[in-house]
Amino acid sequence: MFNFKIIQEYGNARLGVVKTRHGKFKTPVFIPVATLACVRALDKRDLDEMGAEVILANTYHLFLRPGDELIKKLGGLHKFMNYDKPIVTDSGGFQAFSLGFGMEHGVGKIANNIFLEGLKEIPIRKGEKWASVDDEGVTFKNHISGEIVRLTPRKSMEIQSNLGSDIIFALDECTSPLSDKDYTARALERTHRWAEECLKHYNKKQALFGVVQGGEFKDLRIKSAKFMAEKDFAGFGIGGSLGKSKQDMLNIIEWVVPLLPDEKPRHLLGIGAVEDLFNCVERGIDMFDCVAPARWARRGHLYVSPTEGGNVKNKFRIHIQNAKFKEDGNPIDRECDCYVCQNYSRAYLRHLYVSNELTYFRLASYHNVYFILRLMDRIREAIKENRFYELKKEWLGYV
Amino acid sequence: MFNFKIIQEYGNARLGVVKTRHGKFKTPVFIPVATLACVRALDKRDLDEMGAEVILANTYHLFLRPGDELIKKLGGLHKFMNYDKPIVTDSGGFQAFSLGFGMEHGVGKIANNIFLEGLKEIPIRKGEKWASVDDEGVTFKNHISGEIVRLTPRKSMEIQSNLGSDIIFALDECTSPLSDKDYTARALERTHRWAEECLKHYNKKQALFGVVQGGEFKDLRIKSAKFMAEKDFAGFGIGGSLGKSKQDMLNIIEWVVPLLPDEKPRHLLGIGAVEDLFNCVERGIDMFDCVAPARWARRGHLYVSPTEGGNVKNKFRIHIQNAKFKEDGNPIDRECDCYVCQNYSRAYLRHLYVSNELTYFRLASYHNVYFILRLMDRIREAIKENRFYELKKEWLGYV
Repeated sequence: MFNFKIIQEYGNARLGVVKTRHGKFKTPVFIPVATLACVRALDKRDLDEMGAEVILANTYHLFLRPGDELIKKLGGLHKFMNYDKPIVTDSGGFQAFSLGFGMEHGVGKIANNIFLEGLKEIPIRKGEKWASVDDEGVTFKNHISGEIVRLTPRKSMEIQSNLGSDIIFALDECTSPLSDKDYTARALERTHRWAEECLKHYNKKQALFGVVQGGEFKDLRIKSAKFMAEKDFAGFGIGGSLGKSKQDMLNIIEWVVPLLPDEKPRHLLGIGAVEDLFNCVERGIDMFDCVAPARWARRGHLYVSPTEGGNVKNKFRIHIQNAKFKEDGNPIDRECDCYVCQNYSRAYLRHLYVSNELTYFRLASYHNVYFILRLMDRIREAIKENRFYELKKEWLGYV
Repeated sequence: MFNFKIIQEYGNARLGVVKTRHGKFKTPVFIPVATLACVRALDKRDLDEMGAEVILANTYHLFLRPGDELIKKLGGLHKFMNYDKPIVTDSGGFQAFSLGFGMEHGVGKIANNIFLEGLKEIPIRKGEKWASVDDEGVTFKNHISGEIVRLTPRKSMEIQSNLGSDIIFALDECTSPLSDKDYTARALERTHRWAEECLKHYNKKQALFGVVQGGEFKDLRIKSAKFMAEKDFAGFGIGGSLGKSKQDMLNIIEWVVPLLPDEKPRHLLGIGAVEDLFNCVERGIDMFDCVAPARWARRGHLYVSPTEGGNVKNKFRIHIQNAKFKEDGNPIDRECDCYVCQNYSRAYLRHLYVSNELTYFRLASYHNVYFILRLMDRIREAIKENRFYELKKEWLGYV
């Protein structure tokens, strides 16, 4: 059971509701990432309290640990993690990039040659890669056991069926921003063949999204969008390399969105910075997911709104370790009504951060995820009240 | 403002209520430890929800970081950590032992030559010590900055006054179980002199407890109990080396308790295992504090009641990493009504634990602290209903 209803439009931006077997969520939506069936440092009560309506879990990571078959045996992902709202799972394609070319090229989320395994840091040797793609699928080196594991389109569908998520993605090949056009074109052919295979083999109780790829190349993106648009997908992801700059990303969205059917939702995979949310909602994106709020929180970067000095340049973040917060009895953000801002001061959070206290991670993650969810609420309200550009101006300083 | 009222007695065990400036708590009580103004991995809402009525923070640790003067400037410890219930602070004497002879002798809580600084592990070189005691006080090497810092009885009172805790402790010298009688006797003389100095200099708005020392030596313990009993303390700690076995500890309590005035509360410092709670309440102890529940939780050891197989031999703990919990859809303890047991399975917690997920630490700590608090509730109920020994038999298997 899947349904997307557009309630209101404002330029290319739209307000909608997605209905799934596990209830509905409003769009545009920011989806917190629960990589291993858990939004890092938070739990489901936190998520409910902050008004999260949907989360995204990672197929590849859950496939390795604890294993999709175990999760199925225990009643599926919803039951396993005791989360009764909609769950999205990705396809594993991003990890094929991240642990493959991403690692080899030193781009993407694997920073400073360190792979973060929970709280452990696994160093990555230069030139090492843990994934490689061929025409039939992806071969991974399991970073936990060292074993070789194989992910194919059919296998991705099988894993996601075992997980029992509400929205699933077709296996795709994410290319690196350093991949040339030839490679990207070949990767795109594979992604298209894999999409067809996923359409054949997916569990029809789930809603399957196809992923538009093609890197930063206009003709490839257009080709991919047209290809996907014709297929019987419930919605679409826009994934892969989104170019080398924010402008590249916006161009890609502008090429792709008009070619996708209006009545189906569009998910921009892995994106979630404040500036991006405004610019991409404006261009017709309905769904976002990103680990950034929780990840930045863990590293001491906490979101603040424009009234607290947040702007595009500082990325709407303060770094809590800054000595100027030592005696600061104010909350992170005086405008924020989250549990953390209602109860704790910057001075206290700074103390917990510099002391490596575990509680810091939860409180900081709570604030950052809440902040982005609440910003999305405000973006939706602004669309509803035809004042999206006022809100954008207020936050970004430009329209 | 401080008051202790005994409501009911059962042998040497007693039910009471302690009243402080920040409200009251029922005794016998287990006091969770908030070393750095934070019960590790938890926050004040968790503590309130689980029914904690009082917490204990560490003077020495807060003196180093964030500093008692900063805390005073920010309105005191209650305001700093936004906790409005009673707070106890220790004197710093335990750290003088733990970082001094404890480190040198390889005994106490510094296990495997590693000092845990939040999530960081600081290795300790063989024979190294970070604290040494003389007649006037303790000289510490600040493990954060490397600076030399000095703690005297007067300074301990000053720090605790700055913190603004409700119950404070006189500076004492905790001896090592490896200290001989001569050393222990000399340390005791110091502790007694320091107690008198603390009585002179403490902030009279706070309730000062004196600490009975004397190691495992009967005559020294008796001498110390008699000395302390005569002084104008609001209550008493029993601290230091409690001998080399559980029986030694019980002997010490049996020597000391009868010499202390009935109408004042007795706090057994740093103790909190399930078996100990029964045996020490039975011998007249009113207050306990211990980091154990949260610390064991972080290491994967979760408390279970006798109905789940918990007993003296397994210390009422399971280790969640055990493969047998992989597919176990039951909560940690089916009898436990804590938030974690009501919402999550052993299989899910095991998955979070082996994945090093931050959320694990909170959920596990929540359960363990809740478990001990709830056990103390049951011990109080049993005293009230004259069935303490029935409950003890049910849990320990002996009376």
